Amino acid sequence: MNLSRKLFAELLGTALLLAVVIGSGVMAERLSGGNVAVALLANTLATVGGLYILIEVFGPVSGAHFNPAVSAVMAWRGELPKATLAPYITAQLLGAMLGAWLAHAMFDMTIVQFSTKLRAGTGQWIAEGVATFGLLLVILRAPSTRVAAMVAAYIGAAYWFTASTSFANPAAVFGRMFSDSFAGIAPSSALGFVVAELLGAAVAVGVHQLLTTPKAAAASATAGEARHV
Amino acid sequence: MNLSRKLFAELLGTALLLAVVIGSGVMAERLSGGNVAVALLANTLATVGGLYILIEVFGPVSGAHFNPAVSAVMAWRGELPKATLAPYITAQLLGAMLGAWLAHAMFDMTIVQFSTKLRAGTGQWIAEGVATFGLLLVILRAPSTRVAAMVAAYIGAAYWFTASTSFANPAAVFGRMFSDSFAGIAPSSALGFVVAELLGAAVAVGVHQLLTTPKAAAASATAGEARHV
Amino acid sequence: MNLSRKLFAELLGTALLLAVVIGSGVMAERLSGGNVAVALLANTLATVGGLYILIEVFGPVSGAHFNPAVSAVMAWRGELPKATLAPYITAQLLGAMLGAWLAHAMFDMTIVQFSTKLRAGTGQWIAEGVATFGLLLVILRAPSTRVAAMVAAYIGAAYWFTASTSFANPAAVFGRMFSDSFAGIAPSSALGFVVAELLGAAVAVGVHQLLTTPKAAAASATAGEARHV
Amino acid sequence: MNLSRKLFAELLGTALLLAVVIGSGVMAERLSGGNVAVALLANTLATVGGLYILIEVFGPVSGAHFNPAVSAVMAWRGELPKATLAPYITAQLLGAMLGAWLAHAMFDMTIVQFSTKLRAGTGQWIAEGVATFGLLLVILRAPSTRVAAMVAAYIGAAYWFTASTSFANPAAVFGRMFSDSFAGIAPSSALGFVVAELLGAAVAVGVHQLLTTPKAAAASATAGEARHV
Repeated sequence: MNLSRKLFAELLGTALLLAVVIGSGVMAERLSGGNVAVALLANTLATVGGLYILIEVFGPVSGAHFNPAVSAVMAWRGELPKATLAPYITAQLLGAMLGAWLAHAMFDMTIVQFSTKLRAGTGQWIAEGVATFGLLLVILRAPSTRVAAMVAAYIGAAYWFTASTSFANPAAVFGRMFSDSFAGIAPSSALGFVVAELLGAAVAVGVHQLLTTPKAAAASATAGEARHV
Repeated sequence: MNLSRKLFAELLGTALLLAVVIGSGVMAERLSGGNVAVALLANTLATVGGLYILIEVFGPVSGAHFNPAVSAVMAWRGELPKATLAPYITAQLLGAMLGAWLAHAMFDMTIVQFSTKLRAGTGQWIAEGVATFGLLLVILRAPSTRVAAMVAAYIGAAYWFTASTSFANPAAVFGRMFSDSFAGIAPSSALGFVVAELLGAAVAVGVHQLLTTPKAAAASATAGEARHV
Repeated sequence: MNLSRKLFAELLGTALLLAVVIGSGVMAERLSGGNVAVALLANTLATVGGLYILIEVFGPVSGAHFNPAVSAVMAWRGELPKATLAPYITAQLLGAMLGAWLAHAMFDMTIVQFSTKLRAGTGQWIAEGVATFGLLLVILRAPSTRVAAMVAAYIGAAYWFTASTSFANPAAVFGRMFSDSFAGIAPSSALGFVVAELLGAAVAVGVHQLLTTPKAAAASATAGEARHV
Repeated sequence: MNLSRKLFAELLGTALLLAVVIGSGVMAERLSGGNVAVALLANTLATVGGLYILIEVFGPVSGAHFNPAVSAVMAWRGELPKATLAPYITAQLLGAMLGAWLAHAMFDMTIVQFSTKLRAGTGQWIAEGVATFGLLLVILRAPSTRVAAMVAAYIGAAYWFTASTSFANPAAVFGRMFSDSFAGIAPSSALGFVVAELLGAAVAVGVHQLLTTPKAAAASATAGEARHV
């Protein structure tokens, strides 16, 4: 399976993921009449369903990362060729932006816009670190036949238990910068989120190794390429 | 398995699908006291559960298309005999209308009625195109053991992330024309939706081929008849 | 596996099912502040989760019918010994009443009470017939490994798409008579519901046969005893 | 797999479980504007998703008990070495407290606090007994490949059908004592809950034996060690 096909899958999948996240946020905000809990419930359920099918659909093509933090961890573990990391991240960021624009087109909004929603502070950054830690732990330890359902279930929980509603994905941060809506994040808040996410991902790699016996690790290393890419 | 059995399955399945969509929309509208987000949440969950079991129950008999766009794509791919396409679509349209009437009977409403809910505009049409594109991509790429759960999860997400609440099905458009309720669509808005849906389905066929390696495509072509019909 | 063990499973399972249905209805009514749609959403989700695990837990012991209409169909098909039908139904009815009482005990309510909620009329009866028809169709056609998830998903949908909120079970009607709460039904309305349910079940048996090829029916008859009891 | 790895898994898993329960409770309470039913719905969905992935992730390492009542039953059945019980429970209690603190850190709350929410009375204690009875019955009878989904579904139902919102876990009681929020419990109410939970667990062990044929019990005893630890 050649690289351009994988990059197309990452771009399209990330675009659809952001269209789901932002689009359902817009719909929920419009319909909920100011009841934010109901809006976030709807946003959560749409994200869970969308993420589940996107990972199932694009997983066999590109691994369905849709997330630079995931791709970076996979490259570090040798499960993604190092030279493929930059193209993957580029496709994800571009896709995220296009996904935001697609959501705006569907909802008759100005296509190009920027969020003004500030998301910062110690609690938010801890939350993003925890959110991304949990996501990577799930991805690193899930059996391949259940990874889509588990990632979706995890993100559904994390929308609520983390104070940041769990972006957990630098590409999601990037795409949401382009949407002045329920799911948006102001560009000035983006860096803090991304740093917290990368730290959370790094901790997950360490904890994953602590939880793994040497024997299991050896078996996993052999099976890794086949499982994840 | 003979054709009349398949047509009966498509008619009954599509009728039950529309009864679920319209019936749960009526119930939700009556109970929600004007809270549209809560009403759409209930409508979504009922549709997800209903669609899941309808595909599982009728899939082994007729393929559980319930959707002329799906049947057309299957006929184009050679997975449904060309001569069977028109009877399939007829059964689906008839079933959709009967399903709307069944919902009305259960809720003590006038059986024969027509929607006055206008659904039109560029955003709505893009949304219907995206919704149907996603549905067909899921159907074309899902493993057969997961297709019911994946289609249901996808439609659950699409009710929220597309501006049109994702009809994604010309038979659903047809059936909903006959219901002046939460889930209805005015007959004058139907053509725009159907055209957008067929365009979305066509794009999905193209994208599916772009994502498929020649080797996988050959294997799929061999397995196709068994998998989908 | 001897009969007393099966009867204990039917009694306990039906009791827990009614405790779930009535208990979650009481909790939902108390917390929802008059928002009936939110209350029914909570009642639905609790029922879906509870039904799923009860069928998985008690299925291998007794078949997890919890429902006289299901037991009657199984006896008619030869998948439940005819002599076992009356004891099964007795255990289910007794369990249903005890389950209502258990719910009342948990919520500090008068243990013995009777519902005053009238549920009658053509729409309600059609709805109960449709609800039970769908339930039996799912049970008769579901693969055994998915039957628990499918029945739960179906009832979740049917709570919303049928005008009666889908009792679909004479034992549930019996148990709910003993609860003057959200999920109750007045004793004077019970007979109409039960008749509609039995008619719906009978139609399901007929439709199941129409959808089944002679070859599949023969294979199913051989496998039936192992699958369902 | 050595003991320290298992204890780390129990500590981390229980911490994340409490962070999910308490964190989502805080988020739900903040966003719901006093609509308690909507808040509990969100709390429920987050718990269901979180519990599912935590059992899947940590099950292969430590058995994913996260619950002294579960560990005690496993020790009694010989599926957990007796000498391991006290360390397991210590790790769970410590993890639960740390999880509450993590939730507080994410939501910018005072880290160390104590609940003032009284939860007592006959109904509450019956409810906790029933909740824990059901949980243990599910754990003892679930097939190992479905135990995570079944436990999550069960707890989702039990949040609503039990009057106590189903703590069903002495470690959860302990952790929630440290949070003066939606999900908290006053320390003075803790003992009553824990006693009720242990009684419920003991009844589940007895009922499990009543439902099990001698032949199945012998097979299960042989397979037990492999399945649960």
